[in-house]
Amino acid sequence: MTTDPLPSWNDGPTKTALLEFLTASTNVAVADRVAVFDNDGTLWCEKPNYAQLEFMLTELARAVAADPVLGQRDEYRALLQHDMTLQAELGLERIALALVELCAGIGPVEFNDRVRAFFERTAHRDRAVPYRAMRYAPMLELVEALRALEFDVFIVTGGGTEFVRAVSQDFYGVSPEGVVGTLVTYEFRREGDGRPHLVREGAVATTVANEGVAKVSNIQRMLGRQPIFAAGNTAGDREMLEYALASAGPSLALLVDHDDAEREYAYAAQAGTIDFEGDLVQFGRDLGWTIASIRNDWATVFPT
Amino acid sequence: MTTDPLPSWNDGPTKTALLEFLTASTNVAVADRVAVFDNDGTLWCEKPNYAQLEFMLTELARAVAADPVLGQRDEYRALLQHDMTLQAELGLERIALALVELCAGIGPVEFNDRVRAFFERTAHRDRAVPYRAMRYAPMLELVEALRALEFDVFIVTGGGTEFVRAVSQDFYGVSPEGVVGTLVTYEFRREGDGRPHLVREGAVATTVANEGVAKVSNIQRMLGRQPIFAAGNTAGDREMLEYALASAGPSLALLVDHDDAEREYAYAAQAGTIDFEGDLVQFGRDLGWTIASIRNDWATVFPT
Repeated sequence: MTTDPLPSWNDGPTKTALLEFLTASTNVAVADRVAVFDNDGTLWCEKPNYAQLEFMLTELARAVAADPVLGQRDEYRALLQHDMTLQAELGLERIALALVELCAGIGPVEFNDRVRAFFERTAHRDRAVPYRAMRYAPMLELVEALRALEFDVFIVTGGGTEFVRAVSQDFYGVSPEGVVGTLVTYEFRREGDGRPHLVREGAVATTVANEGVAKVSNIQRMLGRQPIFAAGNTAGDREMLEYALASAGPSLALLVDHDDAEREYAYAAQAGTIDFEGDLVQFGRDLGWTIASIRNDWATVFPT
Repeated sequence: MTTDPLPSWNDGPTKTALLEFLTASTNVAVADRVAVFDNDGTLWCEKPNYAQLEFMLTELARAVAADPVLGQRDEYRALLQHDMTLQAELGLERIALALVELCAGIGPVEFNDRVRAFFERTAHRDRAVPYRAMRYAPMLELVEALRALEFDVFIVTGGGTEFVRAVSQDFYGVSPEGVVGTLVTYEFRREGDGRPHLVREGAVATTVANEGVAKVSNIQRMLGRQPIFAAGNTAGDREMLEYALASAGPSLALLVDHDDAEREYAYAAQAGTIDFEGDLVQFGRDLGWTIASIRNDWATVFPT
């Protein structure tokens, strides 16, 4: 390579490992050049709240403005009144499912429009910049470097498939079918003139969110190929990273370590919806994962 | 267009409608240029047997050779002894599910290898040519013409997702994630050294095959966009064709009518796994579908 494809990465073992993998991957058949990225905390910032939660809160505000009685429902009240005790009591899953119901009855196009409007209008809670500016510059470079080597790049998120799809082409150059996430169910309806359309039913389609083992199964179901590169940042990405590293030939598993309270946030990598005992960074190191320390390895965090 | 992108199509209203749609589609945003094709009977020949059934029969022969007792199971015995009465009694669904079990325990790579070996070794039952030669030349031209106009081309099949994925890139230029079909379930396993892999469990993942209304829901789930072009040949494609035609702006729904006993096969378009009362060709005509009569509209049926 004549020019550095990863200028936002500091020189060091992590960048060297990435560059060596990129070079080695040119010996892999093009059909096997498959890269998967977790989204929250891997491609864009997930603190202090998931972007999708922020979106849901704007949907909740809209719904309660239209029908104040809604605000009395426990799951919504816990959020609106910032009642952390009630939130903990109800649990994230029950609250998340209640929030999914807010978009029941609308079609995929209307949902996309609402998500895109959210991203246009809503500033990040701590930074007062649009969410678009909360993507990680080094990871965007990595996506581009892989794509330049004819990799198919996919997003494998624990979040809502449709939420990420609404911006995946714009934010990452990933088309909707390249996003693997947690799916909602749809109802097939006909208009009075017989023309069919789909509406969201407001329930998730699977009994488990797209985390952990489910990420691996859903990669096969949705994409049909085993990745040789995977990037993540939580225990929910563990199996996906192991799966990429178990492929034949050159492979790389990258774990983003959020250790930079000054430029981003500092929090333990094992945070996420899946419990993990111990230190995920050390666990990954022992398995041969490449660790991206934000503090040490990233010259730039957010695009400037 | 300076050169004819559809030389295997005879001049006439059908070809004119296709060419007019291709021209009109250039005014559609690139992200909305989505085309979906049914596979069996639309892109390749489905008579006298589905290719996937022929594949399953080679798997059955292999399994029974290894374990003759298997051949006594009703579903297998009905096939091996060509017992049409027993086949009718058991029903296609039960037989199909029994056949899916034959590949339980193997991984995605091994399954792909077996499917590809089948396509390399097995000649079509009536024509003594490889299945590769049983793709329809006019439809391959249409796929290419759409792709040349920056359409994303997907396959939406009632058959097994994995079966079609094994050859979709080679046969149609469609990568695995572009195939929407009936999915099997996978088990996540670890080797003795802890390395993960997936094995087929031998069951289908959904309660309904990817036919009819399910095709529309699965287009949204797997691909996330509404097509503006859809092609099919049976009642199992009806809702998908209606869905494409219900999109805003230029759209086209194409129904292949198998009316050429001399060069291919002649059978009613409503054949398929979904019952349809009446004449699907006339039904489609009334809804504004474009009908491709193999006898009249196709100058060539199979690639020469």
